[in-house]
Amino acid sequence: MATNQISWIAADWGTTNLRIWLMSASNDIMAHRQSDKGMGKLKPAEFEAALLDLLDDCLTPDAETPVVICGMAGSRQGWVEAPYITTPCTPPGLADATHVTGTDRRITVSILPGVKQIDPADVMRGEETQIAGFLASEPSFTGIICLPGTHTKWVHVSNGTIASFSTFMSGELFDLLSRQSVLRHGVQQSEINTEAFSSAIMDIKKAPQNFAAELFGIRAKGLIAGLTPSAAFSRLSGLVIGAELSALDLTAAPDGNVIILGADRLADAYATGLQALGLSSRKTSVETATLHGLILAHSQLKETET
Amino acid sequence: MATNQISWIAADWGTTNLRIWLMSASNDIMAHRQSDKGMGKLKPAEFEAALLDLLDDCLTPDAETPVVICGMAGSRQGWVEAPYITTPCTPPGLADATHVTGTDRRITVSILPGVKQIDPADVMRGEETQIAGFLASEPSFTGIICLPGTHTKWVHVSNGTIASFSTFMSGELFDLLSRQSVLRHGVQQSEINTEAFSSAIMDIKKAPQNFAAELFGIRAKGLIAGLTPSAAFSRLSGLVIGAELSALDLTAAPDGNVIILGADRLADAYATGLQALGLSSRKTSVETATLHGLILAHSQLKETET
Repeated sequence: MATNQISWIAADWGTTNLRIWLMSASNDIMAHRQSDKGMGKLKPAEFEAALLDLLDDCLTPDAETPVVICGMAGSRQGWVEAPYITTPCTPPGLADATHVTGTDRRITVSILPGVKQIDPADVMRGEETQIAGFLASEPSFTGIICLPGTHTKWVHVSNGTIASFSTFMSGELFDLLSRQSVLRHGVQQSEINTEAFSSAIMDIKKAPQNFAAELFGIRAKGLIAGLTPSAAFSRLSGLVIGAELSALDLTAAPDGNVIILGADRLADAYATGLQALGLSSRKTSVETATLHGLILAHSQLKETET
Repeated sequence: MATNQISWIAADWGTTNLRIWLMSASNDIMAHRQSDKGMGKLKPAEFEAALLDLLDDCLTPDAETPVVICGMAGSRQGWVEAPYITTPCTPPGLADATHVTGTDRRITVSILPGVKQIDPADVMRGEETQIAGFLASEPSFTGIICLPGTHTKWVHVSNGTIASFSTFMSGELFDLLSRQSVLRHGVQQSEINTEAFSSAIMDIKKAPQNFAAELFGIRAKGLIAGLTPSAAFSRLSGLVIGAELSALDLTAAPDGNVIILGADRLADAYATGLQALGLSSRKTSVETATLHGLILAHSQLKETET
């Protein structure tokens, strides 16, 4: 790889991973690299070294290659805090970014801000860049964007702005329950059994207050009613996602205008859950959206420079 | 201690602890002992030794001291499985117990069964003995008994029978969320702040489907709205207990006829939660109820023998 082709660096720095793309001046991906040095494992003084670990061989002395970062690296426990902007707002760009001072002279580092909502209190870091990336390809989109994950976010987007959003701890709940609670004895990871999943969705939609009782019910059904570990896995997933879907006002999403930013099993589960409630959705790559969001931010940098 | 005073042994053998009482013929407590050798730490072949560890010094050769056990020692993963009896039923007694064969000749071991409910599927082991003990002192009680814990149970009791019951994984949910989820960063164990606790109860009662969003809301309020770690602790407790209380039909409990079997902080939290919903309750010692239930079972043994 000829290092002189690298024009700038796009970085998605989350809690558990650091992902970077080495970009050409025309926004071609020259290389993609990643490490497990997520924000959660680093003290503020360790971020620069973690970044240079992935970059050191391709930086030009004194060229000041721009690095544009989104995600948890900008949190209070991150590298440098990048203050939130407040909803309703357009997805933040480089004008709102926080510059990291005192870094290696071969790089200039900008961290994009997150977005906060005052009431109900909510926060995002990283997702705003993914939304910007999605809107770059569909600028007139109005509807709801679902970003599945440890903390799944549902974002109302209207006329290019993030109008409001809501975060659910469902992914983390599911992981804790399936791996660390008493349910772990009777739950086995497997393909989603659509029947068990969908009936759990409907059960919890009917009586969401029964959540903690339905959880124990999975244990009891395993002990006395022959619920298999794989069906228990699907039922647990259905209860957690079903409660979440019951909480959403999806009337703001005209048919087909629920976008799921993701293409993995979790994204499939949300699509299946929406379907069980009679709602259609579209899935689209979150990695592409992230990169497009970072490219958009970097393009603002170029505009500022000219 | 003169070992010849020991007439029988009462044992409450749960998942995490083994508690025994050395009892005289007239049901006075000669000694109380306990170990951390709960069912969860033992293989079937290890139960007898764990019991004898606490007893060895006070058994008479060939006297065949009766040991009456309730709790998880009778589960499938326990010492010997003691099959469930089915609701509606009177709390099971020694006639329903499972005899453990082949033990040390100085003891005869009986394990009381648990209770199961077919629809909705539910199970208990140990609580049935506590209910029996409570009913021994209030035989005409009709109402609801709450047994707070890792898996809190709410039991409808009518005319001396366990009519139906419902188990909530709330205690385990709270522990996982406060100690192992992202919320651990912003939650600090402290005295319950009644205002934060009660407002969480009312919030989740209004919209129980928002549970996973309200959980993340605790994180967000800590980051951007100044929620203190101690208020966050109370809010988390209020959300978990409030969702549970919203799921219950408490119309079956005439005023004052919600009994909470427990006297610890968790029992206090349930009492405060019921109060926030305008319901009164009475707390009573669960240890006393357990022992009385075991005494009741043992007294049936004596009747059988005569």
